[in-house]
Amino acid sequence: MTNRARAAEILGAQEIELPSWAFGNSGTRFKVFSQSGVPRTPEEKIDDAAQVHAFTGAAPIVSLHIPWDKVDDYEKLAVHAADRGVRIGAINANVFQDDDYMLGSVTSPDPKVRRKATDHLLECVEIANATGSRDVKLWFADGTNYPGQDSIRTRQDRLAEALDEVYAALRPDQRILLEYKLFEPSFYTTDVPDWGTSYAHCLRLGEKAVVCVDTGHHAPGTNIEFIVAFLLRENKLGAFDFNSRFYADDDLMVGAADPFQIFRIMHEIVQAGATTPDSGINFMLDQCHNIEPKIPAQIRSVMNVQEATAKALLVDADALTAAQVSGDVLGANAVLMDAYNTDVRPLLAEIRRNGGLDPDPLEAFSRSGYLDRVTEARKDGVPAGWGA
Amino acid sequence: MTNRARAAEILGAQEIELPSWAFGNSGTRFKVFSQSGVPRTPEEKIDDAAQVHAFTGAAPIVSLHIPWDKVDDYEKLAVHAADRGVRIGAINANVFQDDDYMLGSVTSPDPKVRRKATDHLLECVEIANATGSRDVKLWFADGTNYPGQDSIRTRQDRLAEALDEVYAALRPDQRILLEYKLFEPSFYTTDVPDWGTSYAHCLRLGEKAVVCVDTGHHAPGTNIEFIVAFLLRENKLGAFDFNSRFYADDDLMVGAADPFQIFRIMHEIVQAGATTPDSGINFMLDQCHNIEPKIPAQIRSVMNVQEATAKALLVDADALTAAQVSGDVLGANAVLMDAYNTDVRPLLAEIRRNGGLDPDPLEAFSRSGYLDRVTEARKDGVPAGWGA
Amino acid sequence: MTNRARAAEILGAQEIELPSWAFGNSGTRFKVFSQSGVPRTPEEKIDDAAQVHAFTGAAPIVSLHIPWDKVDDYEKLAVHAADRGVRIGAINANVFQDDDYMLGSVTSPDPKVRRKATDHLLECVEIANATGSRDVKLWFADGTNYPGQDSIRTRQDRLAEALDEVYAALRPDQRILLEYKLFEPSFYTTDVPDWGTSYAHCLRLGEKAVVCVDTGHHAPGTNIEFIVAFLLRENKLGAFDFNSRFYADDDLMVGAADPFQIFRIMHEIVQAGATTPDSGINFMLDQCHNIEPKIPAQIRSVMNVQEATAKALLVDADALTAAQVSGDVLGANAVLMDAYNTDVRPLLAEIRRNGGLDPDPLEAFSRSGYLDRVTEARKDGVPAGWGA
Amino acid sequence: MTNRARAAEILGAQEIELPSWAFGNSGTRFKVFSQSGVPRTPEEKIDDAAQVHAFTGAAPIVSLHIPWDKVDDYEKLAVHAADRGVRIGAINANVFQDDDYMLGSVTSPDPKVRRKATDHLLECVEIANATGSRDVKLWFADGTNYPGQDSIRTRQDRLAEALDEVYAALRPDQRILLEYKLFEPSFYTTDVPDWGTSYAHCLRLGEKAVVCVDTGHHAPGTNIEFIVAFLLRENKLGAFDFNSRFYADDDLMVGAADPFQIFRIMHEIVQAGATTPDSGINFMLDQCHNIEPKIPAQIRSVMNVQEATAKALLVDADALTAAQVSGDVLGANAVLMDAYNTDVRPLLAEIRRNGGLDPDPLEAFSRSGYLDRVTEARKDGVPAGWGA
Repeated sequence: MTNRARAAEILGAQEIELPSWAFGNSGTRFKVFSQSGVPRTPEEKIDDAAQVHAFTGAAPIVSLHIPWDKVDDYEKLAVHAADRGVRIGAINANVFQDDDYMLGSVTSPDPKVRRKATDHLLECVEIANATGSRDVKLWFADGTNYPGQDSIRTRQDRLAEALDEVYAALRPDQRILLEYKLFEPSFYTTDVPDWGTSYAHCLRLGEKAVVCVDTGHHAPGTNIEFIVAFLLRENKLGAFDFNSRFYADDDLMVGAADPFQIFRIMHEIVQAGATTPDSGINFMLDQCHNIEPKIPAQIRSVMNVQEATAKALLVDADALTAAQVSGDVLGANAVLMDAYNTDVRPLLAEIRRNGGLDPDPLEAFSRSGYLDRVTEARKDGVPAGWGA
Repeated sequence: MTNRARAAEILGAQEIELPSWAFGNSGTRFKVFSQSGVPRTPEEKIDDAAQVHAFTGAAPIVSLHIPWDKVDDYEKLAVHAADRGVRIGAINANVFQDDDYMLGSVTSPDPKVRRKATDHLLECVEIANATGSRDVKLWFADGTNYPGQDSIRTRQDRLAEALDEVYAALRPDQRILLEYKLFEPSFYTTDVPDWGTSYAHCLRLGEKAVVCVDTGHHAPGTNIEFIVAFLLRENKLGAFDFNSRFYADDDLMVGAADPFQIFRIMHEIVQAGATTPDSGINFMLDQCHNIEPKIPAQIRSVMNVQEATAKALLVDADALTAAQVSGDVLGANAVLMDAYNTDVRPLLAEIRRNGGLDPDPLEAFSRSGYLDRVTEARKDGVPAGWGA
Repeated sequence: MTNRARAAEILGAQEIELPSWAFGNSGTRFKVFSQSGVPRTPEEKIDDAAQVHAFTGAAPIVSLHIPWDKVDDYEKLAVHAADRGVRIGAINANVFQDDDYMLGSVTSPDPKVRRKATDHLLECVEIANATGSRDVKLWFADGTNYPGQDSIRTRQDRLAEALDEVYAALRPDQRILLEYKLFEPSFYTTDVPDWGTSYAHCLRLGEKAVVCVDTGHHAPGTNIEFIVAFLLRENKLGAFDFNSRFYADDDLMVGAADPFQIFRIMHEIVQAGATTPDSGINFMLDQCHNIEPKIPAQIRSVMNVQEATAKALLVDADALTAAQVSGDVLGANAVLMDAYNTDVRPLLAEIRRNGGLDPDPLEAFSRSGYLDRVTEARKDGVPAGWGA
Repeated sequence: MTNRARAAEILGAQEIELPSWAFGNSGTRFKVFSQSGVPRTPEEKIDDAAQVHAFTGAAPIVSLHIPWDKVDDYEKLAVHAADRGVRIGAINANVFQDDDYMLGSVTSPDPKVRRKATDHLLECVEIANATGSRDVKLWFADGTNYPGQDSIRTRQDRLAEALDEVYAALRPDQRILLEYKLFEPSFYTTDVPDWGTSYAHCLRLGEKAVVCVDTGHHAPGTNIEFIVAFLLRENKLGAFDFNSRFYADDDLMVGAADPFQIFRIMHEIVQAGATTPDSGINFMLDQCHNIEPKIPAQIRSVMNVQEATAKALLVDADALTAAQVSGDVLGANAVLMDAYNTDVRPLLAEIRRNGGLDPDPLEAFSRSGYLDRVTEARKDGVPAGWGA
């Protein structure tokens, strides 16, 4: 099989997970700009996500965020998703939006707050059971703003205790995805600031705890593909939150700020043979479309991941290894860049055509008139957002 | 006069300006935690600011933020301030919270939006006339999130046009303070990202346009005191927004993250003889007390500026110059560090006592019972915040 | 004329300047690895640079570095260059490698050192006269390592004095290119740390002083294309030092670390119609090939600049403006990305073929056997380096 | 015992390790400025280090760097040290200065180079046996400059293999200190870039492998005291390389760039009861005195560590915990800052006096005339440096 044929096969099997919350309104601390046609309920968010899949064929999974996506009947929500051609993915816990959580959730100095937070995490495990989800994703806004505010070490003890309890509640086929983040919303310390902290906790917990890499959560100058390669080698890479950034956790469309970086990340994934769903890696988007329309932005993001993956699949692995082993610096770099500089859009158009899709998903979605229809249908009621 | 006596004299004359919005609720994009006793009106914000001055004797000025502090009668508000022992300072324009401003205000691609934004700036000049304020402070959230989204250069043309119009409306004794910021809320470009951009616009505008340095608005590794020294040399330093940060624009209490940095900044101010109000520099706080009580946090911040200033005033200028000129690297550094390592709290306590104040402002404020009283008095109604 | 035809025409006229010192050995403070076949004299460096031009057709100019390229007869050196098909470009002053310069050159506290340094700069103007060079490039390693070590402001006075003297010595058609750099080799302050400082000095000096942008000399998160666009608008952009970096001033091959960034920079250049030599902008490489062979690395770098330029030239300017003006965020970004995602290597191959060159410069250079020949010819003697 | 008395006791027992190479010449890639009186041999470096101990009483240990400190008879060198009142500490391996190491040492693609590098590490273990040193410190300059240059993952395999071999050679009471560094001298990937990588390798190796934290080796915004607290909790903190920096790995005197940071680090050490030698933590300086005289700079650095430690020891731990547990953000921060703002120089002067030392070590060293004597004695021969 040629390199191109193999690439087409793998691209055809690639699955990207969409975050329900990307379809609601979002913004910065300065302003949340409201867009038209924004969904009002978890069901409507799934409807929108299903559109992204309908036009790309590569995004059949939707992550939920609890309590933003709280419903009375999760089995019913799963059926709703199936009816739309998608399925429910990771359950994302939210322990940062109650007033109780001002000084932390599972690491709060207040034991009642810790209990409440841990109970929420356990509830998320229950929801995952109901939706048939494998993954419960934990991101903690916990941390401190001022030196001395709390004990760094004691907070680790509290974190470990909560994680132990959640881990014990997992079913055999379930996993914890433990996310890390350098800063924001806390500014002095973050209780899981880097991959090392997440890795150390996951290692202690056991096989069902794995690290989630959000591409916007690192200090400037951090080599993310190194982390990806290292975690792959340790069998501890569980998931991505894809997005891109120029300075902080900008949550822009993946590939928008540094398309070469997402290519390099996908190159590590491809080299490890971990591109497709059987790798166990959850390739999710986690983005905020503050000023651009949300469904097209998600379509574009899926296409960006596909293009980066396609380029990574076109790397001539044998030529690369040969150049690396012989110490040919320029030659090895040239093999990589040759793939990066290739225009893979024709290949992806062909794959779409072969799959019965329009080769230009954005144009096709635009023509569909969906956005106009939902704008009319959803003109009353409260649009979904982070606080909803 | 001894160094210490001179320091005491200058410290006694120092004036720090408080931001009205620091007394309202604030937060991050993830959550605004509500505190108790938070003011509901511009008048109540001034009441709280007046407490900070009552206990420190060093904060007699309050900045307003329009429209957050919009009132029908600004002269009356000025009288209210005077009754509380303080006066109204800079008028801070806000052109980032209307839905119209999603793609910018004075640099928006839409001429109607630009007109609206410029009109608001002109309104701020009018308010400054009414309150007797010298300074109108302009910070623009304007920028873009994605490469190609708009023309960098055309946006500069639009910005220049708006600034020209505002400048022309200034009375002879009024000034524009033009603030710059590296990033947030826009992520790809910011229309006034750095001091150079602000400086170039101010230079073109004329003498009544000066640069405002917010200590949280720089890239990592930026030497802020260099910028301060450079602008002082060019007579273009107009104001500070003091705060501190570990990574981005954290808006923590000044001196909390890097007390040595604020000392080095004040050292440049002292060396240029620009510590007191006659220098024309507006020393303002601009902070967000997301998790700590607001009035005590402002008191602590004023004290932090005083302590940094006191240390800077204790630097032995002659010994420093002698060591510098002779190329004595360790000796010159030691002169500076000797002042920094001095405990200036006894000196400041003495100055307070001499001024009829309690030597420990935080303790005295706590004893006063003010916070309990306003918590009771303000229990109904909507607490002020960024959106209010 | 089609977009592609216009692109071909402009690409055919593009001129990239090569640094003589890139052909000598370089390294880090930890180690300078010696390569084989490295030139030993200024003449041999020019010979190597001429090879880059011979195979790319786009690099007909060579910058000199004084004293590294000191010769007795600069007119003769210019003739040597002409014989090889290239010409001498900017004269780069070096005031950082004498023991005298430990605490600075033109900003040293020692007036004798300042005199010596300024005399060297004046000597560079003389050399520029002799070589027929338009540009004298000034980069100052000057700065301090420790707070208090020297007066930030006084050093600016000294800098201004030296620049005045050099400016006065320029012939009517000559220019000063004033480079800036955030840090290294000094760590606390740098006397020209950012574009604002360079710009302010150039503005004071006059029309013949312009800013040089080295792409590796900024703080993390700095938007370099903003600076480029701003300086173009102010007619103060004089030159580039192209290279790339991941963290600090890595001096890697341009486009190697972030190919999207160099494209965005060239997009601003193209939008301003400033791609070709008549714009007065000096497009120079400034790189250190520490571990890769130097001539091929320079060829690759020239190709990288050509590819970024070609992509920028393919941007559909009308479509871009239309999307920008209508506030179509995704659409405008898509126009830009469409050009970036195009594979321009066939276009460049065609241009080379039309110019009588091999379409694959690296392969052709390799086949030429030049490197083997000079390795043999230069096996004796001292290879050139930074200290030579 | 009062807090102050306890502090005095612990400070009296504190031991700081000095690097032999700090007494030789050092610089940047631009220039190594030569100083007068610089030692020429390992013995003379030890003589100079002994001066630092003689005047501070707190620096009785000297690290060696191999091959810079290669001698025929290490037992004899240990005796020389003992004669001067100090002892030999960690053995620092150097696998970055042979031409063979251009593409890496233990991670080089060339198996012969890897063998050579591992043999050098084993030699260092042998030297440690000879000098009676507990610690062998491994820092690898290994990495790559260009994407694709080598396989990130394969290099980890090679690294693990070499570490296994060295670990197996350790005697029961010996340890590997595995250092990490974000960047420099390699720019794209570093094979041990962060604490997580070092930690993971140490964990696999076993109890005798521990992490070394160099305070200059992190990305901007990294919270170093978090790492310290985390490693202490995991029993994996083995050593510090103290220094300070503004932007990159500046290797300035510890506490010079951010004295508050070193205080916060020492606060974590104090909280964990790990200040004194029995904690097993090696508190070493690793600095480059490029422009300041070396012996006084080391004395100043030792004093800076002492002052930071003294302040950390003065933190009222009970009051701090009480404020933390009650969620009193400002109160907890105030307890910490109260200690930081204390002038501890009188306390340290008293400790020195009680120990029979001059209260002002810098002044006393200056009076001693040592520098003049060695400048005369060492005027011939080659001063030590990084390449020596």
